[in-house]
Amino acid sequence: MKEVTIVGAGLVGSLWAVYLSKAGYKVRIFERRPDIRKAEISAGKSINLALSDRGWKALEGAGVADRVRDIAIPMPGRIMHDMEGKLTYQAYGKENQAIYSVSRGGVNARMMDIAEQVGNAEITYNMKCTGADLKEGICHFENTETGAKQTVKSDLIFACDGAFSAIRYNSMQKLDRFNYSQRYIEDGYREVLLPANEDGSYKIEKNALHIWPRGRFMLIALPNEDGSFTCTLFMPYEGENSFSQLTSADKVDRFFKETFPDFYEMMPNIGEAWEDHPLSSLAITRCYPWHHGKAVLMGDAAHATVPFYGQGMNAGFEDCTVMWELMQKHNEDWEKIFEEFSIQRKPDGDGLQDLSLHNYHVMRDYVADPKFLLQKKIEAHFSAKHPEKWLPLYSMTTFSDIRYSVAWKEGQRQQSIMDEVMTTEDIEAKWDSEEVESKILELLER
Amino acid sequence: MKEVTIVGAGLVGSLWAVYLSKAGYKVRIFERRPDIRKAEISAGKSINLALSDRGWKALEGAGVADRVRDIAIPMPGRIMHDMEGKLTYQAYGKENQAIYSVSRGGVNARMMDIAEQVGNAEITYNMKCTGADLKEGICHFENTETGAKQTVKSDLIFACDGAFSAIRYNSMQKLDRFNYSQRYIEDGYREVLLPANEDGSYKIEKNALHIWPRGRFMLIALPNEDGSFTCTLFMPYEGENSFSQLTSADKVDRFFKETFPDFYEMMPNIGEAWEDHPLSSLAITRCYPWHHGKAVLMGDAAHATVPFYGQGMNAGFEDCTVMWELMQKHNEDWEKIFEEFSIQRKPDGDGLQDLSLHNYHVMRDYVADPKFLLQKKIEAHFSAKHPEKWLPLYSMTTFSDIRYSVAWKEGQRQQSIMDEVMTTEDIEAKWDSEEVESKILELLER
Repeated sequence: MKEVTIVGAGLVGSLWAVYLSKAGYKVRIFERRPDIRKAEISAGKSINLALSDRGWKALEGAGVADRVRDIAIPMPGRIMHDMEGKLTYQAYGKENQAIYSVSRGGVNARMMDIAEQVGNAEITYNMKCTGADLKEGICHFENTETGAKQTVKSDLIFACDGAFSAIRYNSMQKLDRFNYSQRYIEDGYREVLLPANEDGSYKIEKNALHIWPRGRFMLIALPNEDGSFTCTLFMPYEGENSFSQLTSADKVDRFFKETFPDFYEMMPNIGEAWEDHPLSSLAITRCYPWHHGKAVLMGDAAHATVPFYGQGMNAGFEDCTVMWELMQKHNEDWEKIFEEFSIQRKPDGDGLQDLSLHNYHVMRDYVADPKFLLQKKIEAHFSAKHPEKWLPLYSMTTFSDIRYSVAWKEGQRQQSIMDEVMTTEDIEAKWDSEEVESKILELLER
Repeated sequence: MKEVTIVGAGLVGSLWAVYLSKAGYKVRIFERRPDIRKAEISAGKSINLALSDRGWKALEGAGVADRVRDIAIPMPGRIMHDMEGKLTYQAYGKENQAIYSVSRGGVNARMMDIAEQVGNAEITYNMKCTGADLKEGICHFENTETGAKQTVKSDLIFACDGAFSAIRYNSMQKLDRFNYSQRYIEDGYREVLLPANEDGSYKIEKNALHIWPRGRFMLIALPNEDGSFTCTLFMPYEGENSFSQLTSADKVDRFFKETFPDFYEMMPNIGEAWEDHPLSSLAITRCYPWHHGKAVLMGDAAHATVPFYGQGMNAGFEDCTVMWELMQKHNEDWEKIFEEFSIQRKPDGDGLQDLSLHNYHVMRDYVADPKFLLQKKIEAHFSAKHPEKWLPLYSMTTFSDIRYSVAWKEGQRQQSIMDEVMTTEDIEAKWDSEEVESKILELLER
């Protein structure tokens, strides 16, 4: 029986343990943090996550989707809140399609249960990876509480240790011809908890992702099981409307009152709650190759992204689907599996990141724009009539398992077509006309 | 008297020691390698370097230019060798303008002498930087021969420790919002030494940079003082014409015979000499910010580039000029100096790298192209008539101290003008006509 080391008991490491166990491997997981199921600590970044098709598919592939379903709240669309508190609803996809809100802490705890109970994995906590010999399959760990050192040799190493992967930093970055980049975007985020009503009910529509788009910044809210919402303000660090301006409870209070009046009404104590969560940064990390010797990077360690398409977790879970397919294809010849995983999956990591950055601008700048909403309406209308010719970009990304790289390319093509369609005279009146339909059909032929 | 730590006794660290000493600082330098003046070791990458105006200006600012002049061989132009061994000469600038060939080992040894003798610096060798506390001004070193550890506290830290800077890796990369990238280009290089004739004379023109441009790859040669040439083959790692194909002395022999016949004639033993030097990679590293606490990055540590514009050393030396000017401006208020150095100099680091990548393509693909040579002739002709309106890009980069960022932008503008000029009918005949001159003047006004 082959012995395998997984570095990181996060979402991807925990799920991958189940797949490996299914294939007959003995799995040991080493996690840097304490067990979040026992301690009152956060599981890192705490933006709520949105589980969508790729994630569900990977969970189903491991036979554990049902164990997650009860903590996932469906959000079939987004609700935009304008300055006057007026609401606009936009469905994400077709009827019966939704993305699902899960809290990071909740889903991570659940995934650890699954790794232990279904994956028969042994998880050791407080184990910081201090180095590795990837050719030999050796990892060095140090216990962060006792200082004790441990060296672990195994047949394979799966580095599922996040955006700032210790395996990657300690043992891959200095390899000749290893490409790497970490790029922080100019915005940061701060979380705010909008509590439930006294009777435990939700203060705003439960089954939706709420957005207060304000151009250069935005507030979003995702539902929790207990009636509360995890809200996140995304905003530049510096400049006119920026975190650097919100230096006192008074200023925060005034800012929310003026900018998010309907939110402020629900949470007039925002000024005091402001410091409950820290200001955090957002980065994209890219690297290549994703493997070396007996080790491979998966999830954020390979392709960490900004959260604006809600695809980070889904992409990490999909890595498990892809790796599993390669295991079948190459009959567990791991040299071939790792090599093909790097080559095949890298463009999709890049595509995921390009999509995420793109949606950052869409959510911030366009989601409230009538022209953008009209464009999306035309696309949905056309797509309903010609589903084989047009799958909207959001649906390709969220409600399909089309490769991210393909979705991104197809999305750019669709955008250039819609750029032309939107110049049609009197488009507001003609949006569902035959003229517009033929124009799209014609442009698709080009 | 303020005490200062310089990490790295390379070209930039050694020169910067002189400037600091001039300002009354006590300088200690810690170098990872042994003393190259005593040991038979290479000073890292050994492509010969081309010293040009920015470099000379920085050496003169420290009053040490004369100490370098005797090991520098002027190269007023480049000589292209075609497949038939036919030579084409192209001057780099005006009469009396030249770039200067220096061997990396030779100039580094000389700069260490200067650091000790003029900069009163104390250099300690075999000292590997294992970590640092940049807020406190503390560096940790380990002696690579004895294993002894040493902690050094000083008022300021200058990290001049190269493309893969230990200070940057150990103490800056994990800082929140620190941007970093290392990107290897698809080409590598291998050095070949073309020996002098038996009487010590040069086998080809001494005072020139020789290029054998072959489209996707090229060979270059720079003169040494002893009659030899340091030659470098730049070529992709993989593919049709690539290092991966040159797997035996026979294959190398055949490749040179067919591809560089005039070179092969001078060095028929190339097949055996092939393994004298290793195949090495080429990378661009970018990062931001360049400072933190009491430390700042200079030279390659801040903006390592590929060698195709011959500006890596010159840019590093120019960092000394810029830092020195900021010292005067801010009266040695180092917080302000470091901050402004990062903000002001970063675009020039980027510009330097963009220029280097651009010249990589120019040298490889265009330098032998009659159309390209004609374009350069037109530019030179126009520039001679209207020197205040047009300084060729190569001259801006090499024979001026115009900011790299400005040169790069201006170069792109010139290129778009020349793109139009070169479409003129019968341009080969009219290149020095009034028609072409007025066209350029008109396009410059746009």
